[in-house]
Amino acid sequence: MKTIGILGGMGPLATVDLFQKIVLHTNAKNDQDHIPMIIDNNTRIPDRTESILNKDGACVKELFNSCHRLEKAGVDFIIIACNTSHYYYDELIKYTSTPILHMPRITAKKVKKKGIKKVGILGSIGTMKVGLYQHALKEVGVEYLVPNTKEQNMVHDLIYKGVKAGYYPKDGFGMEKVLESLKEQGAEAFILGCTELPLGMENYPWEYTWIDPTLELAKEAILFAGGTWI
Amino acid sequence: MKTIGILGGMGPLATVDLFQKIVLHTNAKNDQDHIPMIIDNNTRIPDRTESILNKDGACVKELFNSCHRLEKAGVDFIIIACNTSHYYYDELIKYTSTPILHMPRITAKKVKKKGIKKVGILGSIGTMKVGLYQHALKEVGVEYLVPNTKEQNMVHDLIYKGVKAGYYPKDGFGMEKVLESLKEQGAEAFILGCTELPLGMENYPWEYTWIDPTLELAKEAILFAGGTWI
Repeated sequence: MKTIGILGGMGPLATVDLFQKIVLHTNAKNDQDHIPMIIDNNTRIPDRTESILNKDGACVKELFNSCHRLEKAGVDFIIIACNTSHYYYDELIKYTSTPILHMPRITAKKVKKKGIKKVGILGSIGTMKVGLYQHALKEVGVEYLVPNTKEQNMVHDLIYKGVKAGYYPKDGFGMEKVLESLKEQGAEAFILGCTELPLGMENYPWEYTWIDPTLELAKEAILFAGGTWI
Repeated sequence: MKTIGILGGMGPLATVDLFQKIVLHTNAKNDQDHIPMIIDNNTRIPDRTESILNKDGACVKELFNSCHRLEKAGVDFIIIACNTSHYYYDELIKYTSTPILHMPRITAKKVKKKGIKKVGILGSIGTMKVGLYQHALKEVGVEYLVPNTKEQNMVHDLIYKGVKAGYYPKDGFGMEKVLESLKEQGAEAFILGCTELPLGMENYPWEYTWIDPTLELAKEAILFAGGTWI
């Protein structure tokens, strides 16, 4: 069995979520059947959206530090528990000798496989601005819809003022309006394209078809490590 | 803020639980307020109770490997997400230069502080046989009760056939009988002295006063790292 490295801390609760999804979905009857993992919960990584908006790449140094720590600790491959960070994927693979799985591409393939024709993308301002999911969906030929600027701020609030701060107001920062608006435009399902969003949605009764990239990444990681998904 | 090292994988779900308890109870408004952590989910560690019963210390080598990996990765102190492993605590601190917190002693101090006069101890066969909690409670002068041999097998089954295997039969392997028997003998509360037990109990409606060593260790780790418990 290969050792999985998780580059995490962005945020910590999303890292818990990815770790837990791997453990719960691994076919195992005892501790030793499970997949070895090393998790770098690096809360020193500066905010990824700010790094993108400021064009200073402030988070890159700490992303590298984590990759190298995981490499030195002996992991066989790396997964990143943050969608926005994948903007720096090309640099990370260039200067890291360990394979890194690509969450948005894995997710886009799953959307295609499920036969979804048009999907709504939800994510941080950084992820949306650089078009991480837009590019990945174009690669597999799936149409997509994105929130307008006002709606995007609501999504960002649920991530930052909600999940990252542990605060869940009744109206979910207006997220339901965003979902309804995209649904009316033809979205058949929604990509929860920020690792905080699956955690955020658990607090609300909204019933839509979700695509959870954390779950898709967990599945791919289990298979890549040599485990069996249950 | 200090970096916490978690020696885990015994089992993986208990490691998720300790990680999550630290994250949920840290006073933080954004990712960077959280405590950096490195988690070694080492599922290659052989079973601890078997190591004790066979007197071969089969798990010690891998416990050392994890400690040294965490040290090299730069953690400031280590916590172990498994009670039974604390049987090897003296060896681990002897050959590791990083401080290691001691879950049973931290828990025993909490029991004393809560003013509990007599407490029931629940744990794996290994933990019970070597008296990890019995010793820790004696040190602080709290009386304790332990299950008889037949009852101990029921507790062990809930840990091994239950939590570690992801299987929860309606009768909980007879655990309620064990709890009632100890309560009748005077137990005011129960130490869930195996990191699988807090997870196991969540599946049943039994209402007793629990002492959760994972939670107590999480609290101590947050404070030791320089964080604030909420």
